[in-house]
Parts: sequence; C-alpha cells; structure tokens
Amino acid sequence: MIPKDHPRYRSLVARERLARCAREGVVALEGLTAHGRGEAFDYLIGEKTTGSASLAARTAAAMLLAARHAVISVNGNTAALAAEEIAALQQASGADVEVNLFHRTEERIALITGILEKHGARVLSGTVERLVPLSHDRALCLPHGIADADVVLVPLEDGDRCAALRAMGKTVITVDLNPLSRTARTATLTVVDEVTRAIPAITAACASLEPDEAGRLIATLDNTYLLRAAIDEMRERLSHALE
Amino acid sequence: MIPKDHPRYRSLVARERLARCAREGVVALEGLTAHGRGEAFDYLIGEKTTGSASLAARTAAAMLLAARHAVISVNGNTAALAAEEIAALQQASGADVEVNLFHRTEERIALITGILEKHGARVLSGTVERLVPLSHDRALCLPHGIADADVVLVPLEDGDRCAALRAMGKTVITVDLNPLSRTARTATLTVVDEVTRAIPAITAACASLEPDEAGRLIATLDNTYLLRAAIDEMRERLSHALE
Repeated sequence: MIPKDHPRYRSLVARERLARCAREGVVALEGLTAHGRGEAFDYLIGEKTTGSASLAARTAAAMLLAARHAVISVNGNTAALAAEEIAALQQASGADVEVNLFHRTEERIALITGILEKHGARVLSGTVERLVPLSHDRALCLPHGIADADVVLVPLEDGDRCAALRAMGKTVITVDLNPLSRTARTATLTVVDEVTRAIPAITAACASLEPDEAGRLIATLDNTYLLRAAIDEMRERLSHALE
Repeated sequence: MIPKDHPRYRSLVARERLARCAREGVVALEGLTAHGRGEAFDYLIGEKTTGSASLAARTAAAMLLAARHAVISVNGNTAALAAEEIAALQQASGADVEVNLFHRTEERIALITGILEKHGARVLSGTVERLVPLSHDRALCLPHGIADADVVLVPLEDGDRCAALRAMGKTVITVDLNPLSRTARTATLTVVDEVTRAIPAITAACASLEPDEAGRLIATLDNTYLLRAAIDEMRERLSHALE
C-alpha cells in the first residue's frame, strides 16, 4: 500500500493501477512504457495542471461543445486510468465514446468497453470499417463514430493516428504530457497535462464556460504557444532541480 | 520489423526487446514503466552520449580499476538490454557480477543469470543474506559479492537501494538517464546516459586510461557538476524543440 501522504501518491497509484491492468490485458505492454515517458514529463511540469494546460482544457471544452459531432476515442491506458472521468466528460459534453486501440484485439475491445460501461459511459458499438488512412487494423473505426466526427478528442494517442485524423480534415484534441511529441505537434489542440487531471478540467469547463468566452477561446487558439508554455515550464523546473 | 534507417532505431529496438523480456518474466512490469521514463530523458539529451556523460564514463572506469573489490549489480532491465555489454565490461575491468533484483523471485534470478552467462559473463552464486539496510527481500545480497565490495556499479537502480549502499560506506556508480532522480543525486558518480551506450563507454575507457588520468579523474570527481551539465543539455534541447 502506498501511504496517502506520500508526495507522489497519485503518480504511484496510477503506476500500480496500470501494471495491474497490464496483467489483465487491458493495457498493452507498450502502454506501460508510454506511461513511463509521460511520468517523466509530468515530473518536469511539477505533477500539476499548469496555467497554460488550464487554458488548453477550457479551449478543449469550447471545441467539444461547439462540435457538430464530437467523439472521444478511448484506448487501454485511458480506460485504465480515467474511465470514470471519461464518463463524466461524456455527460457534460454530450460527446460519443468509441474504443479505438493501437494493439487491437476483439478481446481487448470488449474488456475496455466493459470498464467504461461499468463507470457509466455509453460506448458506441457496431461494425468497424477501414476508414482512417493507416495500414492494417489501425485503419479501423466506426462509420457513425470517429469517421463521422468533426471533432475528436484522443487522449494518449500515437503520432501516426493523430496525423491521419488531421488528414481526414478533423479537428483533433489530444492530451499528451510530451510537448515535443509528434502527436502534440500535429493535433489542433494539445492539453499538456496528465490524463486524470486533464479530463476533469475539461469537464468542469464544459459546465462553467460562457458562450462569449467559448467563442473567444476557439478564435484565439494558438497550439504552438501552448506547447511553448509547457516547454518553458519544464525548462524552469529543470533549472532549479538541484537546489 | 523496425527499419534500420529509422532515426530512432536503437530506441525502438530496445523498447521491443524489453516488452519481449517482460512477456518472458525477465523484466518486471514496473521495469517497463521505468524504461519509459528513461526514454523521455534520453530524448531530451538527444539520444547520444554527451560530453559530460563521456567524462563520467571515464571516471567510472578509473574507479572500477582502482577498486579493491568491484561488483556490477545487474537487474532485469540491464540484463535484457545489455547482457553482452556487461560481459565485456567484466572482462575489461575484472569486476564481479551479481544479480540483484527489486522484484526478487528465484525464477527471475535464474532467468537473468542464464542470460548473462549465455553472453559470456561469470555470475557470482551462493547463499544470499540480509546485509543491505532495507526491509524485506530487498536486503538480500551475497556476503562475498555486493556486501564485500568497496565499489558497486548499479545501472538503473532505485533510490532506496542506492542510498542503502551509500549508507554501508560503499562507492556507488550508477547509470541513470534522469539527472533529478534520487539515485542520480545519491550515487557517488552518475553516468547520465542510456545503458547500452554507457556500459561500452566505460569498457572502452578501461582499456585506454593512462594511470595519471585515472588518478586525476577520481581526485576531481564532482557529481553535482555532472548532473548540472546533463540538465543544461536538456534545457538547451527543450529551448530549440519547436524550431
């Protein structure tokens, strides 16, 4: 058991939960390595939501609410860490939820759908088709889900898929702790924050945004500025690291 | 298959190898997350041996050669990634090799010993005793191995064990990509470099060091300077990241 007063309690609990989900097959082994990369960058932003991440989360809420059809694309890591938070965001934003996996098997799709539904999310189902411009099974998605969406929120996504969704003309919002990743740089909007902090921040903003603020956030979105702010935060923290 | 001309070929091969070793039980699931953290920091130093890491590797060689009894402590991640490199370093430095695991089971000890021996390392054996000031099985080591050593090289070590070895009065050399980690800051000497680059660099230095250079490197060792140099490298790279 990790003591609740441990300074890195949340981070250690997330790591344990992910290892357990890997044993159960929900999380791919590659997902554990990806999580470790995220941990390193989270450490560098102080394991807290920065001012620029908070602005990004409010902008994400504005984009989800303004969408014709918003879909949240959920993978194994997101379901393992934030199933309850995804269900709450679906409630607040009216977005659809689709399970979409890099390491896709029918068994994992069923497991992850089960976790999301247990936490109160409604998950899209149906027959997937090869509609995303990617090779192999990574092209698969639902015609009435991601393929139809104008706005897709894809937390913890890989760079190839993010680029493919952009190439389909979609607005892509991602949650990615690495501001240098291809995903972070390819997305329309990147929330540089840990997923269990980012999703509730977007949910809270869905409830509190005034229409004029929402419009202004979308009109003034500058993702390079947001990424640079996250990088500056990391540089600042590094410079005081040995004090 | 990862194409050999991929700019991040070595990093991707290491990740695949580690996932395979996790399936075989050599690498703990926690080891995959730890590797991911390392990947993030490796990215920030440009996935190459920096000038300060090269200086640290030469200093490590000097300390191993000057030791009364040097022991290389090998865990699952190190064996999975660098068994051949460890065998070559043992040859060049005359150090003993002991398997020492955070997530210790007899099965994993046997698996990892087998990998090291297959690559030509001679691995210490015998009955372990609780000689390291840590709780549970983490206290276990060999009386004629780590317990007797004056210099211990522990690549990819955790902070608790590094501190416990220091508390036993030992000179601790570590290889750790995170210059902010407790291990990096507690060790006598930290090589901030990826393990498959760091170990061959130490091995090469064992063969090329002149006695007067070796003495000077040990006399002028300043680990805080080495850590700060690594941090400066990361800050510099971050500042140009979006160009």
